[in-house]
Amino acid sequence: MSKHFYRYKDSFQLESGKVLKGIDIAYHTYGTYDPEKNNVIWVCHALTANSDAADWWPNMVGDGCFYNPDEYFIICANTLGSCYGSTGPLSINPDTSKPYFQEFPALTVRDLIKAHNLLVKHLGISRIHTVIGGSLGGQQAMEWCISNPELFDHLIVLATNAKASPWNIGFNESQRMAIKADSTFDENREDGGLKGMAAARSIALLSYRNNTTYNLTQAEENLQKTDDFKASSYQQYQGQKLVKRFNAYSYYILTKVLDSHNVGRNRKSVPEALSRIKAKTLLLGIPSDIIFFASEVEYMSQYIPVSLYREVESIYGHDGFLIEGETIREEILNFYNTSILESESENVFNKQNL
Amino acid sequence: MSKHFYRYKDSFQLESGKVLKGIDIAYHTYGTYDPEKNNVIWVCHALTANSDAADWWPNMVGDGCFYNPDEYFIICANTLGSCYGSTGPLSINPDTSKPYFQEFPALTVRDLIKAHNLLVKHLGISRIHTVIGGSLGGQQAMEWCISNPELFDHLIVLATNAKASPWNIGFNESQRMAIKADSTFDENREDGGLKGMAAARSIALLSYRNNTTYNLTQAEENLQKTDDFKASSYQQYQGQKLVKRFNAYSYYILTKVLDSHNVGRNRKSVPEALSRIKAKTLLLGIPSDIIFFASEVEYMSQYIPVSLYREVESIYGHDGFLIEGETIREEILNFYNTSILESESENVFNKQNL
Repeated sequence: MSKHFYRYKDSFQLESGKVLKGIDIAYHTYGTYDPEKNNVIWVCHALTANSDAADWWPNMVGDGCFYNPDEYFIICANTLGSCYGSTGPLSINPDTSKPYFQEFPALTVRDLIKAHNLLVKHLGISRIHTVIGGSLGGQQAMEWCISNPELFDHLIVLATNAKASPWNIGFNESQRMAIKADSTFDENREDGGLKGMAAARSIALLSYRNNTTYNLTQAEENLQKTDDFKASSYQQYQGQKLVKRFNAYSYYILTKVLDSHNVGRNRKSVPEALSRIKAKTLLLGIPSDIIFFASEVEYMSQYIPVSLYREVESIYGHDGFLIEGETIREEILNFYNTSILESESENVFNKQNL
Repeated sequence: MSKHFYRYKDSFQLESGKVLKGIDIAYHTYGTYDPEKNNVIWVCHALTANSDAADWWPNMVGDGCFYNPDEYFIICANTLGSCYGSTGPLSINPDTSKPYFQEFPALTVRDLIKAHNLLVKHLGISRIHTVIGGSLGGQQAMEWCISNPELFDHLIVLATNAKASPWNIGFNESQRMAIKADSTFDENREDGGLKGMAAARSIALLSYRNNTTYNLTQAEENLQKTDDFKASSYQQYQGQKLVKRFNAYSYYILTKVLDSHNVGRNRKSVPEALSRIKAKTLLLGIPSDIIFFASEVEYMSQYIPVSLYREVESIYGHDGFLIEGETIREEILNFYNTSILESESENVFNKQNL
């Protein structure tokens, strides 16, 4: 495992038309690139994660894991707008020599992909065996396979959708309202908006789990209590945990990335965009997920030409994509081993070309 | 319709042991009390509502409505801790001659009921035909029928539970975190914490509706957008609507009332508490409700001795209890007309005595 930085010095034009004067991309690699073996696995991370996939996706990436560095060359890049080494709101704005804070331009998933493409070029990679991601990571993986269909052999997405739902946006807007309610956010300082971000994380957490999870993990033993409930402490704790490792400006801007996700934008339609994917695709939905519904994942399987939709049972809702490693590994293994890999005409996959 | 105020001048001891030096109770009445006709309907309101039930519960209460003042004497009292005339955080603390703000003592549903009981006594009411409420209103109605079982003939609760769930508390804590993230809350002024409260309302709204409602009502027509989505405007709008009519201190303290709701507290158990209810009970659950699950409503029917559990279909989730007036009226009519009213032994209701 090694962490790297790539500095792209030219202008980087965003989907909005705005321009960043150069960007940094922080990324981790695990294993050795072997073009003969077609061994590149690209992992896209979710909202607040980082490029160290072996850290946040245990059992999936790393020594002795499913994606083993002895066999694969695994890459994970910190997304633009984040705060783990890639250019984001706390980076120095070359025009002002001060951090961007709220001046950082709005990003979309397509901007995140554009940065990934720069890194692909920089690393001299011509073929990616598998691009994989859940949640915002899945949105990136899918958008990438639509815009660069020839680059990928396999696409694996978990707990994600083709277009942000009004429900997603409602949750994200509530979180941004909490951040903006914290007046320190407008003071544009590194620790600005942290109380608001803690509340935002607490809201997000509700959507990452569900009623069943809370009933199982946060039930009270003491039935005489009138205050200081476990569920309250849990929300506070999770909020504070994020405060220690993230900043409110990156959080704010990345929730906007989620909102703007729509593979159909400036294309004919969402189905038409999905039909462009050439990678063999595994779509994993989690029936207990209350923020990215399994039905949204299944919907995509109607339009991605060579795709398999499967469900991952979990009591953890959306977080299941990080927790249910064993089931996910089995599903991926099954996906890799199906006859689709040899012959598309004999596959067991659902197809519906437009 | 007329609005009244009752000032109780003696000490009012709360469940916590703390004492309020007198309380005000604001209440509405509709119609005329007629003990001969046993015509008292008591309506308990939810979190941010007020005593004007004809206003917030259209078609249910008022002229020409289900509970018609020509026939019934309908009462609705503003809850303690609220801000529509009853004593709450913005009331003057007699010890300091200033508003309580955050010094207002914690309340429980039992304290709200204690205030209702004072009003019953003040009005000289000896029998209540029906006590009815949804959400926090249902929690009050139920708690009241447990602590004063002889007072009521009928109990009707909608979209509520016998004990706050960890899920409820998680949502409420997130809302309080948003309020506390707004530093003006700690300035203890009438408009303190309003930005935080707007965020809190936005969070609450997600729980009052659901994914289906958002998809139906907040879908975008313009698929090229990257910002300014309808779902965002909706969250903002709903937040601002509450800001115009409520205060953050009442909101904060009333969410704590929700958290501490537990009919089993200092009783043998939740089932044992429910078994004390003597009123004939109608329990209405809404299958699409994602904050007070229909299963929580149904659970109570196992223990309330004379009870009927029915479901109200709605696309509006929890808010269905305010919106699905027609179905609710039909269910109540059916409930009143069943043989249970004449003879308990011949009734069609589910019973399970402890």
